[in-house]
Amino acid sequence: MIFDPSRRLFAEGLGTLLLVCTVVGSGIMADTLSADDAVSLLGNTIPTGAILVVLITLLGPISGAHFNPVVTLVFALRREISVTLGLAYIAVQVAGGILGSLLAHAMFDLPVVQVSQKLRSGQGQWLAEIVATFGLVATILIALRVKDEAIPVLVGLYITAAYWFTASTSFANPAVAIARGFSDTFAGIRPLDVPAFIAAEVIGAAIALAVTGWLLRPKSDGEPEQAE
Amino acid sequence: MIFDPSRRLFAEGLGTLLLVCTVVGSGIMADTLSADDAVSLLGNTIPTGAILVVLITLLGPISGAHFNPVVTLVFALRREISVTLGLAYIAVQVAGGILGSLLAHAMFDLPVVQVSQKLRSGQGQWLAEIVATFGLVATILIALRVKDEAIPVLVGLYITAAYWFTASTSFANPAVAIARGFSDTFAGIRPLDVPAFIAAEVIGAAIALAVTGWLLRPKSDGEPEQAE
Amino acid sequence: MIFDPSRRLFAEGLGTLLLVCTVVGSGIMADTLSADDAVSLLGNTIPTGAILVVLITLLGPISGAHFNPVVTLVFALRREISVTLGLAYIAVQVAGGILGSLLAHAMFDLPVVQVSQKLRSGQGQWLAEIVATFGLVATILIALRVKDEAIPVLVGLYITAAYWFTASTSFANPAVAIARGFSDTFAGIRPLDVPAFIAAEVIGAAIALAVTGWLLRPKSDGEPEQAE
Amino acid sequence: MIFDPSRRLFAEGLGTLLLVCTVVGSGIMADTLSADDAVSLLGNTIPTGAILVVLITLLGPISGAHFNPVVTLVFALRREISVTLGLAYIAVQVAGGILGSLLAHAMFDLPVVQVSQKLRSGQGQWLAEIVATFGLVATILIALRVKDEAIPVLVGLYITAAYWFTASTSFANPAVAIARGFSDTFAGIRPLDVPAFIAAEVIGAAIALAVTGWLLRPKSDGEPEQAE
Repeated sequence: MIFDPSRRLFAEGLGTLLLVCTVVGSGIMADTLSADDAVSLLGNTIPTGAILVVLITLLGPISGAHFNPVVTLVFALRREISVTLGLAYIAVQVAGGILGSLLAHAMFDLPVVQVSQKLRSGQGQWLAEIVATFGLVATILIALRVKDEAIPVLVGLYITAAYWFTASTSFANPAVAIARGFSDTFAGIRPLDVPAFIAAEVIGAAIALAVTGWLLRPKSDGEPEQAE
Repeated sequence: MIFDPSRRLFAEGLGTLLLVCTVVGSGIMADTLSADDAVSLLGNTIPTGAILVVLITLLGPISGAHFNPVVTLVFALRREISVTLGLAYIAVQVAGGILGSLLAHAMFDLPVVQVSQKLRSGQGQWLAEIVATFGLVATILIALRVKDEAIPVLVGLYITAAYWFTASTSFANPAVAIARGFSDTFAGIRPLDVPAFIAAEVIGAAIALAVTGWLLRPKSDGEPEQAE
Repeated sequence: MIFDPSRRLFAEGLGTLLLVCTVVGSGIMADTLSADDAVSLLGNTIPTGAILVVLITLLGPISGAHFNPVVTLVFALRREISVTLGLAYIAVQVAGGILGSLLAHAMFDLPVVQVSQKLRSGQGQWLAEIVATFGLVATILIALRVKDEAIPVLVGLYITAAYWFTASTSFANPAVAIARGFSDTFAGIRPLDVPAFIAAEVIGAAIALAVTGWLLRPKSDGEPEQAE
Repeated sequence: MIFDPSRRLFAEGLGTLLLVCTVVGSGIMADTLSADDAVSLLGNTIPTGAILVVLITLLGPISGAHFNPVVTLVFALRREISVTLGLAYIAVQVAGGILGSLLAHAMFDLPVVQVSQKLRSGQGQWLAEIVATFGLVATILIALRVKDEAIPVLVGLYITAAYWFTASTSFANPAVAIARGFSDTFAGIRPLDVPAFIAAEVIGAAIALAVTGWLLRPKSDGEPEQAE
């Protein structure tokens, strides 16, 4: 099946909306119900991992299920999406993400439009975002070569792990970072801290592109290769 | 394999019974054991997601594994089940669901017949049920097109997420809502609040039917199409 | 591959040993680490579900991976295992299970041989064991017809749910019940209470055999059927 | 695809780095956020199981995804990897593991180089490491015969269980044990206690090699066999 651009853009917007709605909404639910922050993070992690598997499986065949500007950027650099469509993807991802925050607030009877006060900054956080995004993009690029039908599960499990092993809880996504800037809840981030997160995410993606580009060439550079 | 109506109806009733028994029973167990409501919700979520995968995998080949009147309604509108059989499905779903509540109470040595006092009402809750049911029905309808063998896992994971990201903990099912009205425990809902939940669920299902109807037409409306 | 009886019996014994060692050991670990009994039950549930998937996948091709006398009994009634070999299966399941309890104690520096003092009795508990074993045996028998390659995952997920929705935490297995009688820890059961559990488990299995026998005949009884 | 030694070694080093980074990083996150040690262990277990599935799926086709000196040793004894390459594997596993600890510390703004003070010793712990490594190596060796495409999931689930049912939380990996010696956090181990852990792991692997060698010969020893 090949879908026209309007449906592909709708799928990107809807997917990012539901992803952010899950991240923000489960954060509100978990934080409200528990006095233990690790329990809250479990209640935030498990839904996020689960919804990623669902959304990528369902919308992947329509739009590719990027839901993430750095993923779209990587595919544009690999010339697998045009620059024009890629920019449109990024626009609907950001818009969809913000709507996802607002929808979560509306469901939980909170002020719909919020600005986060949650400080997320410092070298450790930035290093964490580089690592988190390196891992996410490397997962996608290696899986495309070795087991592409497993991408939904692999991304869901990767983010499940990265919520815990990275100090930033792994945003790894500029659209999600911007959208979480609009939520003064468990999952929020001060808008002031978003640009550095985005920069770190772009760096992590670039490293993943370079490393996997080298790693996935099966034959040694020293050997003569046939033209492919 | 094709199963006769009596077996299909039995499968719908048994499946809804075990689904509600899991929702109510795990809620009782979790709430009894923990002082932390997020831990209780984890102990309610994980069993519900797990049993959905089991029940849909096993009973799907027999009855389609709807276990949910709005799902049956959607299939009736798509003319994939007759109105007569559809009404019978809904009747056994409701009856099975109520029996599931009673069975859970009996196992936990509680009064078998109960009426819930738990208030679940307000705009946020109703919006949450619209969102929850939209997501559930959209998951099923898109998966039927792009990966139908994954439906049991996708529904299990979707509900796992929706327990946390929707403010209502995602009933998304009129039979389950009615059955939970008969349980004055963690998973209960005041009978007075059930009709609005059902209305919201029907609205969510209708939106999902409309949106996926448009989304899943691969070619643009503007282009000439061949007869299919 | 066909394996000789000594290897099949070894697989049954080893599998039941590791299953009980996981149930008892994770119960000790979880109970020691947490003051919240629902957290302890999560720490008992997740390992049990996980190891079931592993053990059934690995040892199923060798012995059928029963690890459970009522499962062996059901297969003997279906004439899929001889009475002699079935009795030997049950003997090694019980012996393996007991060794699993002892091994868990040894790892956690507890007295190796123990007798449980934990009361588990009453009508609710017995009803729970009937329901739990009905569900387990029905899962296996239906899956054998509709999706046998999914049995390891389905059993793992079913037990994950049944730990929470049944009041007894779902022993559903006479060998495991006997073995847990030898452990005065989180997962223990007074030996005095074991016989009633076993009786309930046999009743649950018998109901599952009868119900699925009727349910899985695709054509209506009223219609003439071709010889198969 | 066949990959040259430099890429295989890079994959082993990167995989072990990310594995240890997940074990140590999620331990820090979980321990910081929670006052309940079982919640912390859940927050340590779920990410570890998840990342194992991801890393083995992605890097298995490149290097075999050992990430573990005893696994490499077993494959060397089975002559499936040369001694020279095997020693190089072990070297990059150890180096990658240590870097993984350091990276976790850097992300969490802790002193990058640390020496653990956490006592992990005694007969129970050593027995636990024998059991844990026996189970891990047996899982791999049996799965190679009966369902090799499931190895990533089986190893992830096995370790998920073993974190809880073994008293040592299942290191089961000399490279990981050494790397955890460099972390004075939740997942740490006193360097003084590492050699006994490694000895226990080698014993567990040897038992697994012997037991599965016998178990997986389909025909009885007493019967005449055809040359294969």
